[in-house]
Amino acid sequence: MDRRSVITGGAAVGAATAASTLPSPAIAQRRLRLKMVTTWPPNFPGLGTAANDVARFISEATDGELDIRVYAANELVPPFESFDAVSTGAAELYHGADYYWQGKHPAFAFFTAVPFGLNAAEMNAWLYHQGGQELWDELAAQFNVKPFGCANTGVQMGGWYNREINSIDDFSGLRIRMPGLGGEVMRRLGAAAVALPGGEIFQSLQTGAIDATEWVGPWNDLALGFYRVAQYYYGPGFHEPGALLSMGMNLDLWNSLSPAHQRIISMAAAAVTDRSFAEFNARNAGAMRELVEEHGVQMRRFPDEVLREVGRVSGEVLREVADHDDLTRRVYDSFLAARQNGMAWGEWSEEGFAAARRLNFPFE
Amino acid sequence: MDRRSVITGGAAVGAATAASTLPSPAIAQRRLRLKMVTTWPPNFPGLGTAANDVARFISEATDGELDIRVYAANELVPPFESFDAVSTGAAELYHGADYYWQGKHPAFAFFTAVPFGLNAAEMNAWLYHQGGQELWDELAAQFNVKPFGCANTGVQMGGWYNREINSIDDFSGLRIRMPGLGGEVMRRLGAAAVALPGGEIFQSLQTGAIDATEWVGPWNDLALGFYRVAQYYYGPGFHEPGALLSMGMNLDLWNSLSPAHQRIISMAAAAVTDRSFAEFNARNAGAMRELVEEHGVQMRRFPDEVLREVGRVSGEVLREVADHDDLTRRVYDSFLAARQNGMAWGEWSEEGFAAARRLNFPFE
Repeated sequence: MDRRSVITGGAAVGAATAASTLPSPAIAQRRLRLKMVTTWPPNFPGLGTAANDVARFISEATDGELDIRVYAANELVPPFESFDAVSTGAAELYHGADYYWQGKHPAFAFFTAVPFGLNAAEMNAWLYHQGGQELWDELAAQFNVKPFGCANTGVQMGGWYNREINSIDDFSGLRIRMPGLGGEVMRRLGAAAVALPGGEIFQSLQTGAIDATEWVGPWNDLALGFYRVAQYYYGPGFHEPGALLSMGMNLDLWNSLSPAHQRIISMAAAAVTDRSFAEFNARNAGAMRELVEEHGVQMRRFPDEVLREVGRVSGEVLREVADHDDLTRRVYDSFLAARQNGMAWGEWSEEGFAAARRLNFPFE
Repeated sequence: MDRRSVITGGAAVGAATAASTLPSPAIAQRRLRLKMVTTWPPNFPGLGTAANDVARFISEATDGELDIRVYAANELVPPFESFDAVSTGAAELYHGADYYWQGKHPAFAFFTAVPFGLNAAEMNAWLYHQGGQELWDELAAQFNVKPFGCANTGVQMGGWYNREINSIDDFSGLRIRMPGLGGEVMRRLGAAAVALPGGEIFQSLQTGAIDATEWVGPWNDLALGFYRVAQYYYGPGFHEPGALLSMGMNLDLWNSLSPAHQRIISMAAAAVTDRSFAEFNARNAGAMRELVEEHGVQMRRFPDEVLREVGRVSGEVLREVADHDDLTRRVYDSFLAARQNGMAWGEWSEEGFAAARRLNFPFE
C-alpha cells in the first residue's frame, strides 16, 4: 500500500507580489496553488468551515505564497477517495477524519476516535506529548501522507433513534449509520452498521434505508435536520468521545517546503483545533435547546447497563484490532497508556472540578 | 489609566536575508527585534516554556522577520511590571497571566481564571465564539495592549497545606499564597491571601512567612519542590478551573503589522494554547504519581461542605466585582452566560462521557 509518488501536475506555479509593512523593497515571489479535497458538504458548519479556516489561515500567513482552494465532497473526488487523491498527488491536501481510511489500515481509527477512547483533551495530550503524533506520522507515511490534527468535535451525541434503547438487545437488527470502530461494536451487538458520508444520511434515514444514525452533536445534527425524521436523541456518544478531524498533506510536498512554511502549516492546524473544539462547545448548548424547545426532540441517556455492555464489547473490539500488526499494537498500547494517564489526572482535574461545581449548580 | 504611546526605542531594525525553498530570487528583508518580558522563572516548565514556544513559533514562521527574545522575570523588569512595560512600549510583548493586573482593572481576573468559573474548554468557547475576546480587546486597549490567550494550565490543584482542611473554619487565619479572585475568596473566609510571583513561593513557605500555597498542578508543583515543606496536597483547584495564560503585545505595534504577521501571531498564540493545555494534561498524571509514591505526599479532596461554602462566597465576590464599572459588568454577564452554556452542554458531553467511561473504569 506504499504509494510514494512525485507530485507533478498538482501544484501550479505563478508569479505574485508579496506585501509587507516592513520598510523593505518590493519582493517578487512565487505562488503555490494547492488543492484541498474534503469529506464534507460545502461550508458545512464546524467541519467544512474548519477546512476553510485552515486553508485561509495558511494563505493569509504566507501572504498568498501557499494559496489553497478547498473542494467540498464530490467537487473534485468522492469524499472517501480524498485520502488516495493526496497519497497519489492528485490533490495536495485533504481535510477529513482518518477513521474513514480504516479500510486501508485499521490503526487509522485511533487517530479520530474509538469507542470509550480519549476525549479531546486526552487526544491532544497523546498526540503532542505522549508519542501519538510520531506513530501517526509513521502510519500515514506508508501512504505518502503527512497528517495533522485539525479540529475536534468534542464528545459527540449517541445518535438519532426512532425507538428507545432500554436494553442491549434493542441494538439487535438496528440499521445504523456509524463509522469507525463504533460501527464494529454495533455489529457485534447485532446491528447492521454502515459508514455513509454526511451528505447522504438524511435521505437514508427518511427513506427508511437506515433506522438510526449518529452524526456529530446538536449544532451539526440540527443543520442536517435529523429531528424531522427521528424522535429520540441519545447521549453521550460513547463511540466518539472527541473526534479529531485531520488534515493530510502529500508527504513529498511537505518535505519540499521551507521550515517557515512547515511551521505555518503545523501552527495553522493546531490553531484550528483550538478554535474548532471551542466552537463545537459554544454552539452545541444553544442548538440543543432549540432541538428540545422548538422541535420537540426527546433527549435520552443510554441506561448504565447498556453503557457497561457497550464498554465491554468496545474493549474487545480494540484488543482484536490491535492484533492486526506490529504498528497497530504499538498504537493501541500507546493510546491506552494515554487513556490511563488521562483518567488518573481527570479524577483530580476536569472531573473533580466539574463535580465540585455541580454542588452549587446542580444538573438541570 | 490610558497610556497610549508611540513605541520609540522598543524595536531595533536590522537587515537580514530570508530563506525560501520556492524558486525565487534572494530576498532582502528587515528584521524586527522584539522583547518579550514574562512573569515566569527562566524556562519554567509549562509557563516559561510556553513563552519560549510562542516566541520561537513566530520567529520560525516569519523566517526571522519577527525575532523575539524572551526575558524571564526580573531579567528586564520585575514580573508584575511586565504589563506596564508593554503598555508603555519599553517591551513589545509580555507573557503572563492577566489576573496579575487586576489591580489595574478588576475585569482582568476573568481572562485568566475565577473561582468556580470556566474550565479550559469553556474559556476558549467564550473567548473565540461567545464575545470574550472582543471584551478582552476592549479592556486591554485602555492600556494600549492587544491580548491573546496563549497557554492554559487546565484545572489546577487546590494547593499545599500543612494541616487538613476539614471545615470552612480551617481557612481562618491561614496565610496562603493565592492570586486573583481566589485570594479575595480566601480573605472573606478569614485567611490572609498574598499574590507572590512563582519564584518567591518556596522560600516563603519554607521560612513560615506563609502557611499554605497554591501554584499550578503536580507537574509544576513538583518542579518547585513544595512537597519538601508541605504534606497535604488538596484538590480540585476550585479557584482556577482552567487558568488561561496570556500574551500581550503593544497595541501600536500590533496595529502597524501586516495582515500576514498579525495572522501568524494570533495563530501562534492559539497553537501554543492547544499544545500547552495538552502538555499539562500529559505530564500531571506522572508527576502526581511521583509526588505520592516517591515523596509521600498525601492527596486530599476538599470536603463537599467546604466546596459548597467556597462556591457560595465565590459567587458573592464575583457579583461585587461586577459592580466596579460598566465594562466589568458586561464581562461578568458574558462570562456567566458562557458558564451556563458550558454546563448545559457539559452534562451531555464531557461530564456525560466521563461518567459513562467510569462505569467500566472506576475511580482508582
